[in-house]
Amino acid sequence: VKDVKVGIVGASGYSGAVCAAILSRHRELELAFATSDKAAGEPLAPRLGLPDDVCKLQLLPHEAAEALAKDVDAVVLATSAELSMGLALKLAEHTRVVDLSGAFRLDAASYPKWYGFEHRAVPALDEAFYGLPDLFGAPPKEARIVANPGCYATAALLAIAPLFRDELAFSDRVIIDGKSGVTGAGRKSDEAYSFVELAEDVRAYRVGAHQHTPEIARYLHRYVHGVRPRVTFTPHLLPLRRGLVVTAYMTARDDATTEKVQASLAASYEGAPFVRVVPVDRVRAHDVAGTPFALVGATVTEGTIVSICAIDNLMKGAASQAVQNLNLWLGCDERAGLDSLPRFAP
Amino acid sequence: VKDVKVGIVGASGYSGAVCAAILSRHRELELAFATSDKAAGEPLAPRLGLPDDVCKLQLLPHEAAEALAKDVDAVVLATSAELSMGLALKLAEHTRVVDLSGAFRLDAASYPKWYGFEHRAVPALDEAFYGLPDLFGAPPKEARIVANPGCYATAALLAIAPLFRDELAFSDRVIIDGKSGVTGAGRKSDEAYSFVELAEDVRAYRVGAHQHTPEIARYLHRYVHGVRPRVTFTPHLLPLRRGLVVTAYMTARDDATTEKVQASLAASYEGAPFVRVVPVDRVRAHDVAGTPFALVGATVTEGTIVSICAIDNLMKGAASQAVQNLNLWLGCDERAGLDSLPRFAP
Amino acid sequence: VKDVKVGIVGASGYSGAVCAAILSRHRELELAFATSDKAAGEPLAPRLGLPDDVCKLQLLPHEAAEALAKDVDAVVLATSAELSMGLALKLAEHTRVVDLSGAFRLDAASYPKWYGFEHRAVPALDEAFYGLPDLFGAPPKEARIVANPGCYATAALLAIAPLFRDELAFSDRVIIDGKSGVTGAGRKSDEAYSFVELAEDVRAYRVGAHQHTPEIARYLHRYVHGVRPRVTFTPHLLPLRRGLVVTAYMTARDDATTEKVQASLAASYEGAPFVRVVPVDRVRAHDVAGTPFALVGATVTEGTIVSICAIDNLMKGAASQAVQNLNLWLGCDERAGLDSLPRFAP
Amino acid sequence: VKDVKVGIVGASGYSGAVCAAILSRHRELELAFATSDKAAGEPLAPRLGLPDDVCKLQLLPHEAAEALAKDVDAVVLATSAELSMGLALKLAEHTRVVDLSGAFRLDAASYPKWYGFEHRAVPALDEAFYGLPDLFGAPPKEARIVANPGCYATAALLAIAPLFRDELAFSDRVIIDGKSGVTGAGRKSDEAYSFVELAEDVRAYRVGAHQHTPEIARYLHRYVHGVRPRVTFTPHLLPLRRGLVVTAYMTARDDATTEKVQASLAASYEGAPFVRVVPVDRVRAHDVAGTPFALVGATVTEGTIVSICAIDNLMKGAASQAVQNLNLWLGCDERAGLDSLPRFAP
Repeated sequence: VKDVKVGIVGASGYSGAVCAAILSRHRELELAFATSDKAAGEPLAPRLGLPDDVCKLQLLPHEAAEALAKDVDAVVLATSAELSMGLALKLAEHTRVVDLSGAFRLDAASYPKWYGFEHRAVPALDEAFYGLPDLFGAPPKEARIVANPGCYATAALLAIAPLFRDELAFSDRVIIDGKSGVTGAGRKSDEAYSFVELAEDVRAYRVGAHQHTPEIARYLHRYVHGVRPRVTFTPHLLPLRRGLVVTAYMTARDDATTEKVQASLAASYEGAPFVRVVPVDRVRAHDVAGTPFALVGATVTEGTIVSICAIDNLMKGAASQAVQNLNLWLGCDERAGLDSLPRFAP
Repeated sequence: VKDVKVGIVGASGYSGAVCAAILSRHRELELAFATSDKAAGEPLAPRLGLPDDVCKLQLLPHEAAEALAKDVDAVVLATSAELSMGLALKLAEHTRVVDLSGAFRLDAASYPKWYGFEHRAVPALDEAFYGLPDLFGAPPKEARIVANPGCYATAALLAIAPLFRDELAFSDRVIIDGKSGVTGAGRKSDEAYSFVELAEDVRAYRVGAHQHTPEIARYLHRYVHGVRPRVTFTPHLLPLRRGLVVTAYMTARDDATTEKVQASLAASYEGAPFVRVVPVDRVRAHDVAGTPFALVGATVTEGTIVSICAIDNLMKGAASQAVQNLNLWLGCDERAGLDSLPRFAP
Repeated sequence: VKDVKVGIVGASGYSGAVCAAILSRHRELELAFATSDKAAGEPLAPRLGLPDDVCKLQLLPHEAAEALAKDVDAVVLATSAELSMGLALKLAEHTRVVDLSGAFRLDAASYPKWYGFEHRAVPALDEAFYGLPDLFGAPPKEARIVANPGCYATAALLAIAPLFRDELAFSDRVIIDGKSGVTGAGRKSDEAYSFVELAEDVRAYRVGAHQHTPEIARYLHRYVHGVRPRVTFTPHLLPLRRGLVVTAYMTARDDATTEKVQASLAASYEGAPFVRVVPVDRVRAHDVAGTPFALVGATVTEGTIVSICAIDNLMKGAASQAVQNLNLWLGCDERAGLDSLPRFAP
Repeated sequence: VKDVKVGIVGASGYSGAVCAAILSRHRELELAFATSDKAAGEPLAPRLGLPDDVCKLQLLPHEAAEALAKDVDAVVLATSAELSMGLALKLAEHTRVVDLSGAFRLDAASYPKWYGFEHRAVPALDEAFYGLPDLFGAPPKEARIVANPGCYATAALLAIAPLFRDELAFSDRVIIDGKSGVTGAGRKSDEAYSFVELAEDVRAYRVGAHQHTPEIARYLHRYVHGVRPRVTFTPHLLPLRRGLVVTAYMTARDDATTEKVQASLAASYEGAPFVRVVPVDRVRAHDVAGTPFALVGATVTEGTIVSICAIDNLMKGAASQAVQNLNLWLGCDERAGLDSLPRFAP
């Protein structure tokens, strides 16, 4: 039993389960409890593919979380945005909260349009820290809520933020073309997500209407003051299970070259343990599947910067980034629980 | 035996074989001969999945084509660009030629950079007709060579040409993000195209260097005089066998709306039997797999026009478009051989 | 408008839709109506990927079928077994019925165990004709109901029946290992059939309990009088959309050789337009996808006959076999509507 | 740097690379060197998806192995059978050898027929230990060569050996139907293993001729003296990357019941850390992908025992089993290097 304890609310969805699996083998953090609306009462280990002796927890109902929150150092929320909004508020009275949903990422006025509900926790929203450590560093000790970034927003910001900051791109607009595997949509009992419908298909969805659009715009602006490009974001659904690639297009300033954009990325991510800068043609979903890594690379062609980022949507796009935030926030090694994951997986 | 006869050179690659399969069941055209470098001497029917009595041809070596060309009304070339360049020149002395390669699509000066060889048939190149009938109509009777468009170029031009012509987009630049299934790369004995490498992967390739880039630029300019935007094209390889989606991004003029861009596409393709305009969220590879159709749809968001086109790369991107060109050129019904193909295929 | 008319009840499931697509382009049969419980009121053509002018029908509610049955020569039922049982009884008063479900395949006593309901149409059941034309020929003129075989039963019987008849195998037992793509399970809004669950998986299901087990046993016995082996059948679910392979194992009699078993199959299917006998290593799902063909091949090894059959579960395993039955029953060419389907589809 | 050191010959194939990845993070063993014929000179870490600081080795040519073997406690050979035969002989003079190929699994007389070469190291062959620890325990200290079992043989023997030993099955014959993902075939630059050929396909191969057939027969006999059933084995190739399922059929003795066969399996594998007995319908490739586990389950139906085993062909079917053998042989915890691998991977 380790000294620092964390709990998870929502451990039966894809992101929550991956996060629980990482925490079950974390050498510095102890997974103290896990809840699930659908699977309360069941043992957690078999759902994670873990031997029984690695994880002996039983899933509890969500309602158990508030009482247990008092005894842990942090709680991860892997719940829907609307549910997270209320839960985070309650739990943050007792402990630190890392929220995987979109409930604490935008300004209050944006919620009706992009998430379909009124935000009813505005002070907490204003104080929440956006947990993209490779750009914004560690969550401050005094923070109560860390908003874990969206999967597309993570990849898009990693691909574009340094290039705007280093004034290699004009700041009027950015085009972001996203491609994601189907776990990005969460667990679904829906014919649209059946093997028959998705295998051998590719299509755009929520064109001009995806909720990660304002998230990208907001945190790009926060990273590079004064820069507020119009963001056009088009996500596409692909026949793979895990993996997400974002291809971003920016208008190159005159002096931008492939060497300079690669140098800008390399300098930005020099100390980032989970971001690797590679030639643009070597950025691929295959190489990050099941790992906490992002691959980023860019080039300049026809006056346009093409910058591409690949991540595993459930890892750097959700669960491993949450653990990275926990590590930094709770004073662990940033790599703890994550450094033994990458493995050869053809 | 029908009156109008055609031959195919290169019937063992993907595009050539699909073309041969269509022609084998064409009610107005007779497939008179088929050649193959690798499979000469073998019967054609089993390679196409056809019953023996539907097609009784035996594959001949390429060298047989020149003599046989004299007795057919047209020859389809499904050979590499460099091979097509020489073959087309010889065969066009005797008959009409539809070339599926890139050998007759660019201006002569572009070949060393984009195809890696010097063009040695410049007069034929200058006279070749670009066979995208939905934009450029039927090949003229007097033409000798029809350059069948590239798969990405077909989808890209269908998605963007009407919107530039109707002055809905600013003409300075266009971003084209392409996604293709693996048959687009042709038959390969290459580990990079193995199931293990491609399943569960997505990646960009030839960023800023794909040979369809100048093709898109050239024929957009030909379609809309005075318009010569810079074209940034990034193709991506996806884990599907057939299917290609192009997502194009143009800067919207002030009065461009989703209604207007959809109306522009609808008006352009009103008489086109194989182009269907649908809402942008309904454009998907799944619905055109194995069919001669293109689906196109567009929307305006954040000052950007997003226009998406889906085709089967081997059909509208190659073989069915070649047959559509043959039909128009040889005076058949434009739909002949193609109208019975679409079928329910979950 | 053609003289011979048919209707379909249940045209929105996979099998019914494929059947409707075939009939929409059938040169001798006219698809006169189509019903659907879920999509009544919608036009049929777009659901089949067909141009509007090839099929102008609107889907009707199931209830409309009885009145319309009087004006057609046959009705195809693509409904659940329990629904088919009642519907067939009503419709057979007015017209011929081809039933794709299992409602008319077993003896009455087997229904509670294998289908979970009591059969309430026993006389009709006793008179129904089992429509596997390659083994049992054309439905007799006077029949009222044709039971279209199950997908696994079709492949299994094609693989084993001739070998028992020709006394190449001992008749005590047969092992049947089935592998099917996921359309075999029908349209499902179920997480178990999601892309995430099925991609990269293979597993057995309903071991010892699949309802095609008694169907195989019954019709093997009917085909070879006196032979009633114990049938062990294990179906497996594979990550493909269409395609089914059955690998059957029989104890070889002393004089059985690979040559003899192949000869037995070849002789049996000499006149069968949609069964092709090939070497056992060349039987594969890929080559029959989207076609009405079965591939069959067998070998003898270690005293065991291994006989393998591949079909498209939605075609020879359901829809194209129904059309084959209709053709034979209604006096059309057996290949009508089916002969132009096979095509090169990498 | 740890005390116990191992090397790998052939770390660029699938099995060798997976083995190298496991050993790179093994807490008791040190990976001291790795060789590759194709990639000599390259750093190993990026090929395994590992951070540079986890593995600093550079790939050496195979020729370097003999000299280095003197300084390690064991060498893993992930080379072809013919190459392994010679290498093992040389290296075993200096150190322990675990061979992943088939070079040391059969009796000498079987090699020309099943492997296509004469065995030229017969004394070593006779002394080699067959490393399936769940049935045969730890390699003896004095052994020089451990033959790591074939992937199909591992799954087949786990599924059937206890049931023959406990006299639940008649010993005359056993039918083994195997289904494997494509990494089982090794790295290939071959059109037959391309995405286009394999996606949406399933087919049998080497029917009656697969080299794991005599391996299964031999070690079943060794495990259960006096039992020498005729083994019919039919492998099938499926469109998945990793994962292997074997469905075995045995004639049940009269008193065999589902309870008894499950009890037999459960008792056999009680102390086996990587074999889990589950109900037969819950054995699936999905749940063992990327893990060192085997799932096994059986049932009795129609006088037949159906016993099914699922493994990851590259892990329990190759690399993790090699590490399990090393652990037992070198005195480490059997789970070392393997216990943290299983993780939630939708």
